[in-house]
Amino acid sequence: MTDPVPVADATDDERTVDAFHRGDFWLAQPARAGHRAGMDAMMLAAAVPGDFAGRLADLGAGAGAAGLAVASRCSAATVVLVERSPQMARFARNSLALPQNAHLADRATVLEADVTLTGKARLAAGLPDATFDFAIMNPPFNLGHDRPTPHALKRQAHVMEDGMLEAWIRTAGAIVRPRGGVAIIARPQSLGAILDAMRGRFGDAQIAPVHPRAAEPAIRVIVRAVRGSRKALSLQPPLILHGDSGHRHAPRADRVCNGRESLFGD
Amino acid sequence: MTDPVPVADATDDERTVDAFHRGDFWLAQPARAGHRAGMDAMMLAAAVPGDFAGRLADLGAGAGAAGLAVASRCSAATVVLVERSPQMARFARNSLALPQNAHLADRATVLEADVTLTGKARLAAGLPDATFDFAIMNPPFNLGHDRPTPHALKRQAHVMEDGMLEAWIRTAGAIVRPRGGVAIIARPQSLGAILDAMRGRFGDAQIAPVHPRAAEPAIRVIVRAVRGSRKALSLQPPLILHGDSGHRHAPRADRVCNGRESLFGD
Repeated sequence: MTDPVPVADATDDERTVDAFHRGDFWLAQPARAGHRAGMDAMMLAAAVPGDFAGRLADLGAGAGAAGLAVASRCSAATVVLVERSPQMARFARNSLALPQNAHLADRATVLEADVTLTGKARLAAGLPDATFDFAIMNPPFNLGHDRPTPHALKRQAHVMEDGMLEAWIRTAGAIVRPRGGVAIIARPQSLGAILDAMRGRFGDAQIAPVHPRAAEPAIRVIVRAVRGSRKALSLQPPLILHGDSGHRHAPRADRVCNGRESLFGD
Repeated sequence: MTDPVPVADATDDERTVDAFHRGDFWLAQPARAGHRAGMDAMMLAAAVPGDFAGRLADLGAGAGAAGLAVASRCSAATVVLVERSPQMARFARNSLALPQNAHLADRATVLEADVTLTGKARLAAGLPDATFDFAIMNPPFNLGHDRPTPHALKRQAHVMEDGMLEAWIRTAGAIVRPRGGVAIIARPQSLGAILDAMRGRFGDAQIAPVHPRAAEPAIRVIVRAVRGSRKALSLQPPLILHGDSGHRHAPRADRVCNGRESLFGD
């Protein structure tokens, strides 16, 4: 899995076109710099129920991997790919223009906007209140604190990241209608900040840890929740990516990452 | 697993004496009323590292199941069974007096005290600051909100339970020395409240969900953390109690619940 970093200098010439969901849809991506989509986006998309019908926002969509994965799996979904970086938004538009994606293109649009905008600025950017049925997000991490840095700097990065999660979940809480859904993929260490940010906005949180192997700690956590619900959280069965030996995906992980099975069994 | 309820009227005549850890230690318990110890206490005790040496507090010890399970597995541990209810404290003393527990009795004592005491009252009750190397706790739940009750009442019970978790973890944060440990077993829905209460007191939280079967949601969560650590939390491999069919314990669950294996691999 690749960590999201801002794209600085990718051009259309430096792109690859890659198949996802066993060729169900394709993605135009920066070949070198920038965030190349992978497992995280596919697992996030799998958190959306298979029978989802309605309008979904992919917040921080990059080239559109997670949002297009939802559009591909849920034939009654329309998706808005929300991306701040003009370069990545261009890749998303290029993805929509690929002939391989013609069957999805009329159900997906790109919105160039900063997810962390608030109040009138958010509305003006095209993200009004309660206009989506679902929001999914794969917020950037690695804001510095995985590198060996002095203690104070590490703490600052941690606070920055918690603040960003709060801002992203606040936006989701604003743009999703009551009883609508949200799903987020993040590192396990962000679980506390995610639950804090969801408090009062989302309930009925279902948490699915993602473990590389059954006996190893989780490397990701996927949290799905319901706007305005007061239901308590639950810890759902984990997703185990690999068998105890070898690098091939375990059967369930393969199905989940290829749009054949929902993460939460629906 | 039995839910903890206060003992009202149990007498010594109404007791059973039950083997734990395949007969390594025994427990005198109320036969009918009151909290009968079981899986929860054994899983909690298994969160303590096998090589633990030092002074451990079992907060809300009941008849002493979890604390004695630690004493049984960790031969260099001394345990203080902290229990508010005079009746349950008497069962704990009776447990220590059983001839079957003679090999443990000089490493265990009973302290009749309320875990939620604060300040001088806590000190006066025998729980001074930073005098323990570890604290374990299985706080009562079912403060009303599992029963079908009006919405407001349910919410109130939820707030009460979150407040109780805060009080118990605050006491653990006070009586455990820096770099000492804490472990708690609770329902998954309490995870947010537990992480909140640990913030600023404990870090390096390791979370182990307990699932009845691999494909079912967790019914318990065990959180172990380190006093004063700033390390981020981790989601550890879950404990699966049963195989996909049948009611016998899965091999690892059987070892963990019988003092043969630590929950966190140490």
